Amino acid sequence: LDAGSIDQATLLVASLHPADAAAILDELESDELYEVFARLNLEHGADVLIELDTDSQVELAETLTSDQLSDLLEQMEPDDAADVLVELEPAQIAATLAAMDPEDSDDVRQLMEHDEESAGGLMTSHVVTLRDRLNAQQAIDLLRGLQPEDESVYYLYVVDANDGLVGVVSLRSLVMAPAQTLLSEIMDRNVITASVETDQEECARLLARYDLLALPVVDAQRRIVGAVTADDIIDVIEEEATEDMYRLANLPQDEDVEDSLFRSSRRRLFWLFINLPTAILAAWVVSQFDGTVEKVTALVPFMPIIAGMGGNAGIQTLTLIVRSIALGEVATGQGFRALGREVGIGAINGVAFGSAIGLLGWLWQGKPMLGVVAGCAMLLNLVSAAIAGTVVPLTLKLFRVDPALASGVIVTTVTDVTGYSCLLGLATILIRYLI
Amino acid sequence: LDAGSIDQATLLVASLHPADAAAILDELESDELYEVFARLNLEHGADVLIELDTDSQVELAETLTSDQLSDLLEQMEPDDAADVLVELEPAQIAATLAAMDPEDSDDVRQLMEHDEESAGGLMTSHVVTLRDRLNAQQAIDLLRGLQPEDESVYYLYVVDANDGLVGVVSLRSLVMAPAQTLLSEIMDRNVITASVETDQEECARLLARYDLLALPVVDAQRRIVGAVTADDIIDVIEEEATEDMYRLANLPQDEDVEDSLFRSSRRRLFWLFINLPTAILAAWVVSQFDGTVEKVTALVPFMPIIAGMGGNAGIQTLTLIVRSIALGEVATGQGFRALGREVGIGAINGVAFGSAIGLLGWLWQGKPMLGVVAGCAMLLNLVSAAIAGTVVPLTLKLFRVDPALASGVIVTTVTDVTGYSCLLGLATILIRYLI
Repeated sequence: LDAGSIDQATLLVASLHPADAAAILDELESDELYEVFARLNLEHGADVLIELDTDSQVELAETLTSDQLSDLLEQMEPDDAADVLVELEPAQIAATLAAMDPEDSDDVRQLMEHDEESAGGLMTSHVVTLRDRLNAQQAIDLLRGLQPEDESVYYLYVVDANDGLVGVVSLRSLVMAPAQTLLSEIMDRNVITASVETDQEECARLLARYDLLALPVVDAQRRIVGAVTADDIIDVIEEEATEDMYRLANLPQDEDVEDSLFRSSRRRLFWLFINLPTAILAAWVVSQFDGTVEKVTALVPFMPIIAGMGGNAGIQTLTLIVRSIALGEVATGQGFRALGREVGIGAINGVAFGSAIGLLGWLWQGKPMLGVVAGCAMLLNLVSAAIAGTVVPLTLKLFRVDPALASGVIVTTVTDVTGYSCLLGLATILIRYLI
Repeated sequence: LDAGSIDQATLLVASLHPADAAAILDELESDELYEVFARLNLEHGADVLIELDTDSQVELAETLTSDQLSDLLEQMEPDDAADVLVELEPAQIAATLAAMDPEDSDDVRQLMEHDEESAGGLMTSHVVTLRDRLNAQQAIDLLRGLQPEDESVYYLYVVDANDGLVGVVSLRSLVMAPAQTLLSEIMDRNVITASVETDQEECARLLARYDLLALPVVDAQRRIVGAVTADDIIDVIEEEATEDMYRLANLPQDEDVEDSLFRSSRRRLFWLFINLPTAILAAWVVSQFDGTVEKVTALVPFMPIIAGMGGNAGIQTLTLIVRSIALGEVATGQGFRALGREVGIGAINGVAFGSAIGLLGWLWQGKPMLGVVAGCAMLLNLVSAAIAGTVVPLTLKLFRVDPALASGVIVTTVTDVTGYSCLLGLATILIRYLI
């Protein structure tokens, strides 16, 4: 971009919605990004900065002075400002906070202390609270005086004399109510709340279950410290679903189709590498039956069928359990019920596919006993797939590890090892009927 | 439950949030469900009915008279009423609509005509529109007169003399504005809209990208016909993520840990069955090299390593591409760029793992040429995994089929067949160096 096109780019970016403007800026080189961004007005610049991807945010923040950056952050909701700051170097964070208005920087500093994946890390501290003794007109007048900038005032939180949360009033019901009605008469007393430590997945479940637009966050004395809003939760739900899918597929967490080739190769190599010892374990199991394989090579084509079907059935069960845990449908205590159910399905399908493969083995190779061996191996492997697919994620959850993490590798290793051991082991025992 | 405990259950259910009440009722038998439900007041009953799972909704609707059901549906937002009705028998739908207030039933009937997975099927038709010539005070007075019941009035849509959408005003900015300000002065003119045909995934993307709480749905003349709200979109995002995960794992779409054992077995059997011919295809490929296997049984342990690593790499690529398509990160035109990138990663990782396996083959079995064969098969299989993992979902998308549908089976079949063909085919060509 030359000087003229930078002016044009600035005009374009200034006219777009911040999300679209950010998508364009994300594609620019560091110096061009700065040139265009520096020409935006403060308010639009702040909105765009929030929407940039993390790499661009960091690049840009490094070229801005502490004063420029602090001016931008003061325009933002404190939670957005904290999200931008947390990615920077400690020295720059300190300098930027020092340059900010003390009131704003206190809010931001407090938010930065919370775990990024908790309600505390997700919430905004800009929440409007009203005393329960106010009437509707007084509340509206108060709001007009406050002129809260954020859109999150569709819920107003009602507190008692001790600042304890006692109810919630929607802006709609406040506007609709007769002027003299007390807030305590129109508020909903059943407020669903989170604490700062509540995990973001749990926040998402609460918001989805109760169809809320925001979730108030309270401390031990039920005083409001912030609120988590639906737009942040939508991002959380997408992130968590991506995370589970990537973990089930052994993909690095933050892989992106925009990442450089070598960065992606290196990181994916690591995750494939985890799989290598388990593949070699399966190979070692096979090699133990070298004598049997040499005598009955007709067994070899059955290896991919039995291992493949077992792996598929195991991943079916695993995916169902991982997703059920994520959506809060399986509590830890219900694990045995789920296990019984999956083993039942595995046994039924094992009998079905075992019979089919047994028949195939008999007819294809003309040896009934080959059918028996292949069929039994299939049955046993589908049952072991059901057990592994259920027990692995539930055990990981019990130890507070993400149930999706590496569980795909463990489950397919179990089905590979069981499948090959059963097929080749049974064949070794019954070898005299197979030759 | 006896008569006394039904009274107690009713008291409990009546005191709970509709979502929690529904979770309890879902667990009851059909007759108990009816007994408890019939004792709830109309408004709470309607809220609970929306939250029940589909099976319970149908069971309950079958025991209610058309009058009872129509009274309940009139309490609901039209989109929720349409969602309940659409699950019932045509005769009951007709009888219930006939018993409803004509104005309500017209709304519901129109909504039922739209595809369930489109903006039309998802939207509520309860939307407040205001003329652009009104001032803030007039708008608030009008709202007080309308007393809209739904919470979705945090956005008010501003229309011109021809009912065409010209802007959006949040309830917050309306309340904050001086009484005489015209709506046309405070409204935001850049309104993001959908049409009734817009797919629900696209609605979710728009809402997430622009951090909206509701998305107005307009017709060809830009007249508002409804709005899709964030709470419905949260459900859509969870559903779509579950759908993609289940499809990648070949699980039936609506499987649930609560389903009966035989129902689940039967339906999962079907999806595993799709996998059987492809497993047999892999077995057939292996059987073609029976002579080679018989002479060099040392090849057999390498089969699971090469097929397993190929399958894993293929699923990595496939998952990344499917998720990128779902999140709108890969447009169809960018397919070749994604393919180039994945093949690059596959080749780099293929050289790495090919060398590792080659070394293993050489050292373990003492035959350098076995290392060469295994290493080359690994390299070729990782490249083919990259190609299949990219091309299969993008092709399905091109033909407007869900990119996740059955693509896992196709990709692992490609990697199995390529892996076994390369390993055993190369070994057959180079057989004299291997014996």
